[in-house]
Amino acid sequence: MTRVVLGMIGLGTVGVGVVNLLSQEHHLSLKRIAVKNIGKPRPVKPPCLLTADPYEVIDDPEIEVLIEVMGGETPALEYIRRALSKRKHIVTANKEVLAKHGPELFKLARDNGVTIFFEAAVAGGVPLISTIHKGLEANRISAVTGILNGTTNFILSRMEEVGESFAAALGEAQTRGFAEADPSADVDGYDVAYKLSILSALAYGRFVRPDSIYREGIRNIAADDIAAAQEFGYRVKLVGSTCQFSPDKLSVRVQPMLVPLTHPLAAVSGSNNGILVAGHAVGEITLVGPGAGQMPTASAIVGDTINLASALMLPDFASYFHPAVESEWATTADAGEFVCPYYLRMAVADFPGVIGRIGTIFGTHNVSMQSIVQRGVKEKGARITIVTQDVATSNMNAALDELRSCNFLLEIASVISIFKPEFSNVH
Amino acid sequence: MTRVVLGMIGLGTVGVGVVNLLSQEHHLSLKRIAVKNIGKPRPVKPPCLLTADPYEVIDDPEIEVLIEVMGGETPALEYIRRALSKRKHIVTANKEVLAKHGPELFKLARDNGVTIFFEAAVAGGVPLISTIHKGLEANRISAVTGILNGTTNFILSRMEEVGESFAAALGEAQTRGFAEADPSADVDGYDVAYKLSILSALAYGRFVRPDSIYREGIRNIAADDIAAAQEFGYRVKLVGSTCQFSPDKLSVRVQPMLVPLTHPLAAVSGSNNGILVAGHAVGEITLVGPGAGQMPTASAIVGDTINLASALMLPDFASYFHPAVESEWATTADAGEFVCPYYLRMAVADFPGVIGRIGTIFGTHNVSMQSIVQRGVKEKGARITIVTQDVATSNMNAALDELRSCNFLLEIASVISIFKPEFSNVH
Repeated sequence: MTRVVLGMIGLGTVGVGVVNLLSQEHHLSLKRIAVKNIGKPRPVKPPCLLTADPYEVIDDPEIEVLIEVMGGETPALEYIRRALSKRKHIVTANKEVLAKHGPELFKLARDNGVTIFFEAAVAGGVPLISTIHKGLEANRISAVTGILNGTTNFILSRMEEVGESFAAALGEAQTRGFAEADPSADVDGYDVAYKLSILSALAYGRFVRPDSIYREGIRNIAADDIAAAQEFGYRVKLVGSTCQFSPDKLSVRVQPMLVPLTHPLAAVSGSNNGILVAGHAVGEITLVGPGAGQMPTASAIVGDTINLASALMLPDFASYFHPAVESEWATTADAGEFVCPYYLRMAVADFPGVIGRIGTIFGTHNVSMQSIVQRGVKEKGARITIVTQDVATSNMNAALDELRSCNFLLEIASVISIFKPEFSNVH
Repeated sequence: MTRVVLGMIGLGTVGVGVVNLLSQEHHLSLKRIAVKNIGKPRPVKPPCLLTADPYEVIDDPEIEVLIEVMGGETPALEYIRRALSKRKHIVTANKEVLAKHGPELFKLARDNGVTIFFEAAVAGGVPLISTIHKGLEANRISAVTGILNGTTNFILSRMEEVGESFAAALGEAQTRGFAEADPSADVDGYDVAYKLSILSALAYGRFVRPDSIYREGIRNIAADDIAAAQEFGYRVKLVGSTCQFSPDKLSVRVQPMLVPLTHPLAAVSGSNNGILVAGHAVGEITLVGPGAGQMPTASAIVGDTINLASALMLPDFASYFHPAVESEWATTADAGEFVCPYYLRMAVADFPGVIGRIGTIFGTHNVSMQSIVQRGVKEKGARITIVTQDVATSNMNAALDELRSCNFLLEIASVISIFKPEFSNVH
């Protein structure tokens, strides 16, 4: 087998893992790595030339495959564009660039007869993309749902186990190196939204514009909610989902949800990822594994590189290996159309008839209650927790708006969707 | 794209599912199906010619791919051999034929420049093979472990939930169509052993002779053990595992094991399968999904057929798509070398000093106890349940042999291995 010549941009934690794994692949030859700072001490002896000029990698005519592990939108986007136009295949872990510019980049790849491999961009080491693209080839995918961010899953697991506040659990995650100093990409759901855009392209052929994804993070989850959820038989998880909502619309959302304790997703703990894929023939498949980390991510990148290299001998390579991604963005359903049961926690003035008035208001807006628990809380009136039946989000919001105008209401502390294992929120 | 011409042998439940899914694949053309009884009424209008003569399919020069869904060793083996020698690719769900004749069949395929796809032969709809073969390409696999038989998992789940005996739960499984009238292939572990042989070929390059696999079924599991396991924090599962035991030996086993309740495998319930794959780079991946059933199995077969058909354009197809299976059988470790903690249940005459004597005998054979619980049971002396530390099976057996010669021992009712999540039984 002839050796395939590779170039790489970036030599951070993941990059070092990639270099280590590539050293065992004798038909792959890593020729040059572009880094920001050539003089920096590194935990690996670079097996090849380092350069501070990325164009020495991108423009090298001998390099067939560019591994991009620098991350971030700028300047990675420019480098990928240029590499594609120079007819180099891309292996990348860069979810932000793919999610924001996927349609353009895949068109550019197609126009140049090359392709983009991106297993590492979603769920790190969990081989989700090869599972959907190869393993479930005979299926029409109806939903991909799961826990796609290890940092927030660690924080929520920690809040439950130790009984800590969000702020304290976030601090712990930062101390352990699971969360960044600026944790927004994780805790506000941007990271999951990018991954959902990419998963949508894979499952349905179109990327979803990240700003059209309904996005809610975990900053407002209180230790109180985690405890109340447990009483009702649930665990709070940050759930991302992309479902075929109607023949021409996807429903794409990232939001905290109450997952039934008996459901496999509830058992995904710590920094793991767990993903359900529903297909019309297979039913439901669950994958669980490390969603990030040096070696799991490097495993995905090198796996892609090996598969890509083996496939380069294909005469009609591009049409076989390109997932059929269209150049248009997907159309998405309105957030208000989403149907699920809700968990609510509110504080009300403690006088007779309050529950009746809440019931009446809910009835007006077609919200049926499944259970309601009232507890006296000193100095704060009464605490009421409610679990509803299925309700459209727009109706739920209308009912909550009316409640807010009532004089007995002190505070609506939490509104959290409840996860439905059977994906029946798909119309 | 040119149409790839397919033939099929067998049109039972799975075959009908395959016909249904293939009807959506317009680049695949199913030309002829061989069936036992042409006149039999069928839930699907055959989309092509039926024949009672399998050689009309196997010998048809136009047919490139043979889908074998008849099952069983004889006469399927002959048909597959002949089809390979006629240079037809095989897609099969036949675990028995592959496990018993894998080395020969893969050599025959290689000699004829064709290949064998077998995703459906292991774990039904769970895309385990594409995950290992494509998704974890950059990894050295160190262990594949899990729940590989849905029938026994249903029976064990049922015994726990309803508190039924093995016989009653088996009856229920038979009534629901999950278990055969002769349930031996499932409950005695043969089915799992076949799957482990195939998984070993995929993970380590060599099939394992089925009769060299340590095999223990679930007939002796009592409702008592399931309850006692729960007290200790475990659930009883039929676990299959193939691990790299030493550089030149595999340890391959199917046996009931006590799985910690907090472990993902404990959450695999009903007729699902759940499999852990451990790789040196990725760490541990878990896959869960339907291990059998008409449409999940058909999904795997048609997925294979689509991947195979797309790949037929490869000039050096065989070397790319063949998992590198050697013609020799794997070497396996002795059953006695296996190390794990054990759960024991025994009845003893209820007199002072018995626990001391058991402890002394165990000590002689290097068996350390982790916990021991004694309860008086009327008319039966005392019931003692013990959980040991790690111990080599040969030492455990020697200690049990010595116990059996003691006059205080009434019965050793159960000896069950305890599952160790960290695969540390691998040397």
